[in-house]
Amino acid sequence: MTSETYAPLFGGIEGGGTKFVCAVGSGPDDIRAETRFPTTTPAETMERAVAFFKDQERVHGALVALGFGSFGPIDPRPGSPTFGHILLTPKAGWSHADVVGPLRSAFHVPIGFDLDVNAAALSEGRWGAGQNCDPLMYITIGTGIGAGLLVHGRLVHGLLHPEAGHLPLPHDRARDPFAGNCPFHGDCFEGLASGPAIEKRWGQKAETLPPEHPAWELEAEYIALALCSYIYTLSPQRIVLGGGVSQQPQVLQKVREKVPALLNRYIQSTAILERIEEYIVLPGLGNRAGVLGALALAEQAWRNQTLNG
Amino acid sequence: MTSETYAPLFGGIEGGGTKFVCAVGSGPDDIRAETRFPTTTPAETMERAVAFFKDQERVHGALVALGFGSFGPIDPRPGSPTFGHILLTPKAGWSHADVVGPLRSAFHVPIGFDLDVNAAALSEGRWGAGQNCDPLMYITIGTGIGAGLLVHGRLVHGLLHPEAGHLPLPHDRARDPFAGNCPFHGDCFEGLASGPAIEKRWGQKAETLPPEHPAWELEAEYIALALCSYIYTLSPQRIVLGGGVSQQPQVLQKVREKVPALLNRYIQSTAILERIEEYIVLPGLGNRAGVLGALALAEQAWRNQTLNG
Repeated sequence: MTSETYAPLFGGIEGGGTKFVCAVGSGPDDIRAETRFPTTTPAETMERAVAFFKDQERVHGALVALGFGSFGPIDPRPGSPTFGHILLTPKAGWSHADVVGPLRSAFHVPIGFDLDVNAAALSEGRWGAGQNCDPLMYITIGTGIGAGLLVHGRLVHGLLHPEAGHLPLPHDRARDPFAGNCPFHGDCFEGLASGPAIEKRWGQKAETLPPEHPAWELEAEYIALALCSYIYTLSPQRIVLGGGVSQQPQVLQKVREKVPALLNRYIQSTAILERIEEYIVLPGLGNRAGVLGALALAEQAWRNQTLNG
Repeated sequence: MTSETYAPLFGGIEGGGTKFVCAVGSGPDDIRAETRFPTTTPAETMERAVAFFKDQERVHGALVALGFGSFGPIDPRPGSPTFGHILLTPKAGWSHADVVGPLRSAFHVPIGFDLDVNAAALSEGRWGAGQNCDPLMYITIGTGIGAGLLVHGRLVHGLLHPEAGHLPLPHDRARDPFAGNCPFHGDCFEGLASGPAIEKRWGQKAETLPPEHPAWELEAEYIALALCSYIYTLSPQRIVLGGGVSQQPQVLQKVREKVPALLNRYIQSTAILERIEEYIVLPGLGNRAGVLGALALAEQAWRNQTLNG
């Protein structure tokens, strides 16, 4: 369509600890090119990303903005001396890496930079399962647990960014003697319910546990407790559950049963009392929420620049 | 000052379960009149509020907007059929009372209506301890526990409004065998840490317990756990602690020690690592946050009307 042909084109990077996904396009229905490559050193990895976008510019014309949804922790505060940097991370070679710098040197366009979960929250709110939901909470449960929050249509950063995976939760050690594996907090939500926590508790990889294994009942209980905590604190209008663990169908079903049971009719909202399957949902963009989120970050940076200048 | 004389005047109602406080003014430095009276029936109580504002209009001229910060639960969604109503409440005679109706009949001005804690959050953000903090969290710990949230300068409602007092928390029954007194959730935050919970656990009123009583150590621990939960979920830039329990100096001091200890340096922000006494603070407006919040609701309703019409 003509309107798409002339749509402003963005470049997006989903920067994960294992792989990078880069895309060029204007939105989910207009992706012109996409590539993925392993995360090696910061210099080499960013060079590949820059080369991909340069190649695409030769085919499709100039990109008007770039977006980068990164694994954390990062500094997403524009104006901060360490904006665009990865902070202290166990990933070898990446602590204090300036990942926005190489993009800024190669492209003279606005650059949006935020956490991967924030990018996913933004794209789910813009194009996916969280449209017109205020607040919208996007949670990923996999190797780690994190969340992105959209309130009044904008991402929440606060001090730096939320770290919703580290909630303190009730933990009945008589029922579940596993001490938790969070190096900072032991049995916080992530320490009890991440993929590696499941593996350590049961002695086998989470994805190899059969659907009827008691692991999933316990997992759903911790997720439901955390979701109740988020619901009390923030009253989100929808919760999107991303990440590998959430994709186990028995988990989603049990969470949808347990959340209303734990709330015990205290939150008098039909969203919870009558339509829980529309309230706690899987990502509408599937596993593309991340890279599309990077495009949404680019779009946001482009709009903000247009507004401010 | 001339500029104050001509400032638009608002009427505000802090509607509590025990007493109503009404004020007329343009802000904290310009209160023209104030009154308080016991909360009796909805009809009689609202009649007194209306009479007070009518009297004041004869002295000071017309009020341009009214604001009502109410005890909950309420329906604060403009456009909803039960907007302006108290919802199901144990307070005799007040369930389903339409409290905005009598104001609307008597005054043809915009009316802001919200929870008391939301009103307090708004006034603390506008004039008090939470200026320029995004997000700002205002928590009251007293007969009940509740919180108001300002994000990007606006209150958060979501499904209806947050109910942050009902967080599930770790509860070590070996150390604290008290089962909690929340009729819905037993040992949620409010069930473990409200004034009535303290009284029930220790067999005497909270305000009669001496500062060195072990009650306060335990109380500070539950408050600190809840604050950590809010910090992980929302990353507020400041937390304002209101309510009677928070005013015990030994509680505030212990909470400021326990929060960083529980976070265990995971949140790498100087606000927490170096300036905790500026991060967890008492209300800047003291016990006037409520009635000033009602004025702030009025001001907000007046501005929104000016913007929209």
